[in-house]
Amino acid sequence: MRTYLDWNATTPLRDEVKAAMRDGMEIVGNPSSVHSEGRAAKMAMERAREQVAAALGAEGADVIFTSGTTEAAAMVLAGRGVHCAVVEHSAVKVWCEQDLAVDSNGIVSVPDPARASLQLANNETGVIQDLPQGLGSSDLTQAFGKVPFAFNWLGITAGFVSAHKLGGPKGIGALIVKRGTDVEAMIRGGGQEQGRRGGTENLLGILGFAAAASAAQRELEAGLWDEVAARREALEDRLLAAAPGAIVAGKAVKRLPNTTCLLTSGWKGETQVMQMDLAGFAISAGSACSSGKVRASGVLQAMGFDDKAAQSAIRISISPALGDDQVNRFADAWESAYSRWRDRNG
Amino acid sequence: MRTYLDWNATTPLRDEVKAAMRDGMEIVGNPSSVHSEGRAAKMAMERAREQVAAALGAEGADVIFTSGTTEAAAMVLAGRGVHCAVVEHSAVKVWCEQDLAVDSNGIVSVPDPARASLQLANNETGVIQDLPQGLGSSDLTQAFGKVPFAFNWLGITAGFVSAHKLGGPKGIGALIVKRGTDVEAMIRGGGQEQGRRGGTENLLGILGFAAAASAAQRELEAGLWDEVAARREALEDRLLAAAPGAIVAGKAVKRLPNTTCLLTSGWKGETQVMQMDLAGFAISAGSACSSGKVRASGVLQAMGFDDKAAQSAIRISISPALGDDQVNRFADAWESAYSRWRDRNG
Repeated sequence: MRTYLDWNATTPLRDEVKAAMRDGMEIVGNPSSVHSEGRAAKMAMERAREQVAAALGAEGADVIFTSGTTEAAAMVLAGRGVHCAVVEHSAVKVWCEQDLAVDSNGIVSVPDPARASLQLANNETGVIQDLPQGLGSSDLTQAFGKVPFAFNWLGITAGFVSAHKLGGPKGIGALIVKRGTDVEAMIRGGGQEQGRRGGTENLLGILGFAAAASAAQRELEAGLWDEVAARREALEDRLLAAAPGAIVAGKAVKRLPNTTCLLTSGWKGETQVMQMDLAGFAISAGSACSSGKVRASGVLQAMGFDDKAAQSAIRISISPALGDDQVNRFADAWESAYSRWRDRNG
Repeated sequence: MRTYLDWNATTPLRDEVKAAMRDGMEIVGNPSSVHSEGRAAKMAMERAREQVAAALGAEGADVIFTSGTTEAAAMVLAGRGVHCAVVEHSAVKVWCEQDLAVDSNGIVSVPDPARASLQLANNETGVIQDLPQGLGSSDLTQAFGKVPFAFNWLGITAGFVSAHKLGGPKGIGALIVKRGTDVEAMIRGGGQEQGRRGGTENLLGILGFAAAASAAQRELEAGLWDEVAARREALEDRLLAAAPGAIVAGKAVKRLPNTTCLLTSGWKGETQVMQMDLAGFAISAGSACSSGKVRASGVLQAMGFDDKAAQSAIRISISPALGDDQVNRFADAWESAYSRWRDRNG
């Protein structure tokens, strides 16, 4: 019996998503074909686009389907000399000047918003930024589905999202831009997505994405993530009481309701991940995206933590699918592993 | 009751593909995560990679999963000044100098193979090229699953394929390169695909792709596409007998077993597509990829057909899923539409 507490890495598929994809498997046509089969595929895709836009509060904006945030970021950022902070996901910062200042809570200063990219929420700490008006672009990946926002009210030009962070399939996402924004195609030929992204569309992924986005929107409106936040607070209270020297990164500021980044200086995060894995719990040490890498998190270093503290970080990211029982069993397991570690190292 | 004869545009999902994707929906982890869930996802993905490589005869080569041929082509061709012919798919030719000569059968001359890209089979006519040894890259999309070949024996450095042309899902494909070939990532960050293609992998698509590739390989070995070729020949005999002035493009040379590109000069291809659609048959006029475009095919113009002939082209592309009955009913419908056209225009 496994318990999955690594929601920020990826999520299980929602039942609504499985159903939408199973139905979509019966669609025969290519959305670019003009015959009945093609038109049916196109109609399903455009309905999905409207669903995604509605869930993002991006009605009237352009939703360009991509293979995910990483591609969307490349389309907007590659070769443009955009500024960002080192707390950004590597998909963003690989293209940017990483020179924006980060404070000890993980909050980023953005002197020139139009030429900057700033995430709405951090994947490791969950820290939420106040996006300045006129911001060039924002990685909305971790925030989408966990906290309410409307693209149309953020005052940004471009946003990046991925379906697999909110119960949708991996390998599909979108670049959202204000209507009519000039976006040069990176993947070209075929003229799909109004000439901004060539290649036959990932129709099943798109249908799954739309189902996930709608379900996530309903969950948020129903207040399920407020319950997650309460459960996360209770978890943090327990862990910090058991390990008085431990620190929750970004605890002083607004964070995603589901994310705990816990530092227990001296106890390697990777070791904790392995011990918890053996005990039946999936958590992570920093971002999941760089397989096998055992290196101190740049996010935590930017917040002023030393190597020893940063290397001790684990990320616990929960969801509405987890009840009190499961979270408490995790806390039990972690506390007992912590006691053993403290006894050996005390 | 519809009959789908537009296999080169896209294919219905195979039952094996639906099953593989349904099973894959239960996989929870991110392939980059180190916990059990992540390792299970990674293992499924790597098994799929081996299946795709085996079906391509590319054992030992590098299979880099992409969102499809269009992305794979961009990775290899963008900004490199590669030469190609205008008969290439737009995903290839958008990046190339389109200066290679094409003869009246659609056969391309390649004076400098290392600096050229040449498709194995054409999407509109089905014409198959003899790939010269040392060729830089080849769009294998239309050939994969329809004619036997082994990447390892083609003598090319890079190949592009898409799953949705052989019964797999749309939005997933691969770039195949000789092991160790230098490929610069276009979509960056995260380090996936050995640093050559960032972003969380399209796991469901990959599993569907692998199932499609294996099934296609079995079909080819079982000789099902020889039956398709026989059925196609019978169809062409009927159509050409009914319309003595009609021409099948590329008929003098080796073609895909399933493709007929039929020219009936003066009778617009788009009109035929609409009439056949109303009669219950899905065919296309040229490539499906540029939605709504009514323009003479560059492929046919390069083969020396005038505008009037080129604009009359329809593409009929069949598959092992279609029996004699369905193909004959199409021929009946086309012949009766042809008679009406001829009577009005004779």
